[in-house]
Amino acid sequence: MTHVYVAILCGLLAVVYGFVTSRGLLAQAAGDARMADIAAAIQEGAKAYLGRQYTTIAVVGVIVAIVLFVTLGLISTVGFVIGAVLSGIAGFIGMTISVRANVRTAEAARGSLQAGLTTAFRSGAVTGMLVAGLGLLAISVFFWYLTGPAGHAPGDRIIVEALTALAFGASLISIFARLGGGIFTKAADVGADLVGKVEAGIPEDDPRNPAVIADNVGDNVGDCAGMAADLFETYVVTLGVTMISIALLIRADAGELMRLMSLPLIVGGVCIVTSIIGTYLVRLGRGTIMGALYKGFFVSAGLAIPAIYAVTRWVLGDMRAVIGGAGFLDPARDALTTGPDVPAAAVASAAAFTGNDLFWCMMLGLVVTGLIVWITEYYTGTNHRPVQSIAKASETGHGTNVIQGLAISLEATALPTLVIVVAVVVAYQLAGIIGIAFAATSMLALAGMVVALDAYGPVTDNAGGIAEMAGLPDEVRHRTDALDAVGNTTKAVTKGYAIGSAGLAALVLFGTYTTDLQTYFPDLTVDFSLSNPYVIVGLLLGALLPYLFGAFGMTAVGRAAGAVVEEVRGQFRDNPGIMQGTSRPNYGRTVDLVTRAAIKEMIVPSLLPVLSPIAVYFIVRAVAGQANGFAALGAMLLGVIVSGLFVALSMTSGGGAWDNAKKYIEDGNHGGKGSEAHKAAVTGDTVGDPYKDTAGPAVNPMIKITNIVALLLLAALAAG
Amino acid sequence: MTHVYVAILCGLLAVVYGFVTSRGLLAQAAGDARMADIAAAIQEGAKAYLGRQYTTIAVVGVIVAIVLFVTLGLISTVGFVIGAVLSGIAGFIGMTISVRANVRTAEAARGSLQAGLTTAFRSGAVTGMLVAGLGLLAISVFFWYLTGPAGHAPGDRIIVEALTALAFGASLISIFARLGGGIFTKAADVGADLVGKVEAGIPEDDPRNPAVIADNVGDNVGDCAGMAADLFETYVVTLGVTMISIALLIRADAGELMRLMSLPLIVGGVCIVTSIIGTYLVRLGRGTIMGALYKGFFVSAGLAIPAIYAVTRWVLGDMRAVIGGAGFLDPARDALTTGPDVPAAAVASAAAFTGNDLFWCMMLGLVVTGLIVWITEYYTGTNHRPVQSIAKASETGHGTNVIQGLAISLEATALPTLVIVVAVVVAYQLAGIIGIAFAATSMLALAGMVVALDAYGPVTDNAGGIAEMAGLPDEVRHRTDALDAVGNTTKAVTKGYAIGSAGLAALVLFGTYTTDLQTYFPDLTVDFSLSNPYVIVGLLLGALLPYLFGAFGMTAVGRAAGAVVEEVRGQFRDNPGIMQGTSRPNYGRTVDLVTRAAIKEMIVPSLLPVLSPIAVYFIVRAVAGQANGFAALGAMLLGVIVSGLFVALSMTSGGGAWDNAKKYIEDGNHGGKGSEAHKAAVTGDTVGDPYKDTAGPAVNPMIKITNIVALLLLAALAAG
Repeated sequence: MTHVYVAILCGLLAVVYGFVTSRGLLAQAAGDARMADIAAAIQEGAKAYLGRQYTTIAVVGVIVAIVLFVTLGLISTVGFVIGAVLSGIAGFIGMTISVRANVRTAEAARGSLQAGLTTAFRSGAVTGMLVAGLGLLAISVFFWYLTGPAGHAPGDRIIVEALTALAFGASLISIFARLGGGIFTKAADVGADLVGKVEAGIPEDDPRNPAVIADNVGDNVGDCAGMAADLFETYVVTLGVTMISIALLIRADAGELMRLMSLPLIVGGVCIVTSIIGTYLVRLGRGTIMGALYKGFFVSAGLAIPAIYAVTRWVLGDMRAVIGGAGFLDPARDALTTGPDVPAAAVASAAAFTGNDLFWCMMLGLVVTGLIVWITEYYTGTNHRPVQSIAKASETGHGTNVIQGLAISLEATALPTLVIVVAVVVAYQLAGIIGIAFAATSMLALAGMVVALDAYGPVTDNAGGIAEMAGLPDEVRHRTDALDAVGNTTKAVTKGYAIGSAGLAALVLFGTYTTDLQTYFPDLTVDFSLSNPYVIVGLLLGALLPYLFGAFGMTAVGRAAGAVVEEVRGQFRDNPGIMQGTSRPNYGRTVDLVTRAAIKEMIVPSLLPVLSPIAVYFIVRAVAGQANGFAALGAMLLGVIVSGLFVALSMTSGGGAWDNAKKYIEDGNHGGKGSEAHKAAVTGDTVGDPYKDTAGPAVNPMIKITNIVALLLLAALAAG
Repeated sequence: MTHVYVAILCGLLAVVYGFVTSRGLLAQAAGDARMADIAAAIQEGAKAYLGRQYTTIAVVGVIVAIVLFVTLGLISTVGFVIGAVLSGIAGFIGMTISVRANVRTAEAARGSLQAGLTTAFRSGAVTGMLVAGLGLLAISVFFWYLTGPAGHAPGDRIIVEALTALAFGASLISIFARLGGGIFTKAADVGADLVGKVEAGIPEDDPRNPAVIADNVGDNVGDCAGMAADLFETYVVTLGVTMISIALLIRADAGELMRLMSLPLIVGGVCIVTSIIGTYLVRLGRGTIMGALYKGFFVSAGLAIPAIYAVTRWVLGDMRAVIGGAGFLDPARDALTTGPDVPAAAVASAAAFTGNDLFWCMMLGLVVTGLIVWITEYYTGTNHRPVQSIAKASETGHGTNVIQGLAISLEATALPTLVIVVAVVVAYQLAGIIGIAFAATSMLALAGMVVALDAYGPVTDNAGGIAEMAGLPDEVRHRTDALDAVGNTTKAVTKGYAIGSAGLAALVLFGTYTTDLQTYFPDLTVDFSLSNPYVIVGLLLGALLPYLFGAFGMTAVGRAAGAVVEEVRGQFRDNPGIMQGTSRPNYGRTVDLVTRAAIKEMIVPSLLPVLSPIAVYFIVRAVAGQANGFAALGAMLLGVIVSGLFVALSMTSGGGAWDNAKKYIEDGNHGGKGSEAHKAAVTGDTVGDPYKDTAGPAVNPMIKITNIVALLLLAALAAG
């Protein structure tokens, strides 16, 4: 239990860091009255949106909680509520900090680039550490309560079900937050650009544009609140599923299980510490902004190596002692070890694993994270072929810009997929499904730092907007622009990282699904072979979900952006003083319009992954019996990941590349700002917006929800 | 053997129909000297391109033939060569007819809409019947030779290998033809539009545009020759794989096997007859052009119902007699029938099937074809929500047009997938894998008619171009435009139909893969379960292929179109007389440029599906043993289809919808031609071009090649 206490302490440390740093942040100067005025409008809009979003989600949440209480009992319901509430809090904190940091960043950027960077990054770090800290606290306190005061053994079914319900709560809120926030931010952004930049010919963030406050609100509720909820979910699900898979797959005594199950918690804990150290190293020095951010990241990751080794050794004792030597419940490994064609050495190494094997799996997770950062940088950075090829294609018009952007978005799936495939094979050879789970855990252990890098972006974006609207000197805007350009790449990195870890976690979730099935229905022979046509049916239906979900997301943004255009045109028509700068536009009405549109549009697609697994199971069961119902459902889980990985990677990388191709042209290439190439690049950027900030990132929680709902369905069917 | 003779007779009938109809077509008036001049330039360009394309493919073909000869022997090599040569001939005929029919259609449209329709559709029907006829002749004559003069039993391995090699030959040529032709046609089209319509402000098909002949050549070498080779491939693979699966999966005596294996041939034969009858019913009457074309299609399909029933009864005798009663080699069905959860009735019906079951499976294939026609019409026709929503989104600019188009392209995958899923389940319940195979066979039996509808489109497109360039009266152009608009939908229909049937055929191919594996490597236990991580690895790598392939295709079109723009700008600059109409542009140089670009760009992506399965097998085998190598390879085959189905459906439907959204605006909606909405719609159309005519349709042969290469690899490994 000592290990769990240490993890709880690390989680508390993250909260303390967040509290202290945010106090320091709030103590900074918040600019003049005009700036405070604008910031207040953004704060008000963001709070109003988040309030309505959470009210709507609460209705769904209460219904789900009742269903869980009736089918699975109190403990699971409590787990669900904790996950849901903390996911909501994570989003709320992300928003609360960023709406206050934006104006302070603008003010700090008046002084120097370094001051602006520090303010923006510190606010990102607060969000990052609180996301990781709250995630760690949620799991470790809950696990401590269940195995301590409540007196359950670590491998009990009730622990598995409780952790699954906790993950479900986090995922359910996060899909609503990601999608609702994503629709809000991009509808406002696209709408404001279309009617402002394109039609009225006024610059971005011009205070005469009635949609300008909505656009800035969107950065906070989408890119901050939605992102924070999403990464909170990814953290909780990844650590949770690693613990669940240990409980399900390893035959060991309670003491060994307890130690193994605390390992992900304590790894998460020490990496919070290394991430906090890393945040203090983000300084410009003589390098680039990107270099400063990377310094923080690589120091965190570098310090994580000895830290992970030390805690693994502390928890497991002898690093060469065999774990799970008594055998596995993992059916794939049994098949692998008994196949006639497997060399003897492979059998020996696959039959069990050691602490060293787990350590190497975690190192693999760090390598995967580094490679995904590097690949994302290649595909979305302005210094490399992909972005430059889109910029070049803009010279021949809108059409070729979009064609090349789509080509890059398709291509950008290849390297991450190869990295994931190699990681799966290596981790599996080292320590089976558990090895894959630990690789995913170490990826997520760095979540605090990764979220910090991401949350920094929208704060600088907002700071630029405030600088523009408040009429600060041009050099302030140049500084915030420089900070913002780097934000585009760091935002793309987080998404690639989240979906990559989801790829690994989903494989582990499928492993727990098959094991659960054997536990709950020991008499049922389920044929998961690809020769079973119901497996194909499940794969196809699962693969369909990300496409349908993407269609909903894209349509929602298009429709809501169209409504913004109509609204703004109306304001310009009814009040000619706006364009002359003599009369103030009604910002609130636009915010309200986008709020209503986003809330309305988020509901149906968010319920898609919740209801589809249930529908597929019952329909196939009615047609072809229970065993095939379970086979189709299981295959659906893999279909979602196999297709979702590509849809998400192509959308997030493609969108980032389009965005930076525009920035590359604005830097003076291919004719620069105002050229025909620039107009074409603006079109590409608009297309990429819902790709990268609405549909693409929401695929990540969607994959997890589909998997978790299937696990809960199994438990409910077994109980009912 | 009588049944095979009848099939051969029907194939010959199709050839006779093609010969007689094309003689009638060529006897029609070919217009004035100016028209003949333009037509000659198009013919020359098309012949030159196809000549170079076939020379390049021949090099690859000869290498592959040598490899096949060394690994699999003479018979397989002969099969490969027959498939390859006939696929090439099918493409060549498609091109030859269409480059002569275009000018005659323009001339006929001077008289009346009906005359133009008849000429264009007759030329399509020639291509259609020759594709189906040659396909049927290839398989049935080869099968007759092997089981007759060569004296092999119908279920012999040599028959299976020979038919697989035949399918491989057809597929290999068709992927080159589809992709090379697709790159040619869209590079020319996009390039001509960008520099002509957008930059120089001259109308489409203006003779002053140096890329205008290349654009017209593209219609013939891509939409006619490439499409014909593709559908020839689909026809041969579908009928071939049905026969192979019968040979592999059904335990019966040689007489019963012979009868069952002739059934797909004779079904293909009678449907050629009903299709020929259908072609005579394509007349305008008082209805629409679409109505006239559908009349022909529905008469063909309607007459096919009693015809299929009659021949099934004739071949099988008693329709209620049990087939395969002695048992199946199909492992999935064995598992299904022995599972503890399957109701007794399902076991009885699944254990064997009757002639009636097969008949209903074939009816299911007809229903699937009808539904796919209807769904494609819904998503790409101008009368429905999807196209109108894109047109409406064009009002707010280029960006929203593309966003809505992408949303529709994602959404358009849902209904076809559901249709295919239901068809798989129903056919499987009726007659197992064999049932799915027969459903695919009856879909393809209508190929003659479907190709006729498709090939009609590019002919009318060319006729419009010739009318414009030759300065024919406006009403002629209006008539050809009306014919062409319908062609957009019929072209999208063919692609949906081809990929839908590929979905069914690929499942059957996977079934033959697993059975082959058991036959060749009886001692090897291959774990195809989804719990095996190498299965996941295979699924992910398979799913990657269509993305990578699509990226190559899109990039190729973008790059080649850019080169066309540069070339045309150069001609305008060097020869100012071109724009004044005093001097003739150098059409040939542009054709030559596009030719070289298309040939160069088609090679690497076309080899991707040939080499990937081999690479995956050997790499996984080296890492994790032979059994896992086969597991990963098998999973890759399903990964390709699971992801390829969505990529292809979204690209072909989305592209068609964008194209017709432009046409819908040109019909006077949302401001009509020249409005801002129209400009945005032109951008969407440009983006949709490589989607629907290059990358999307080439996914169909790609899926098949991956599967067939895997089958051949198994045979080669077993032999070597």
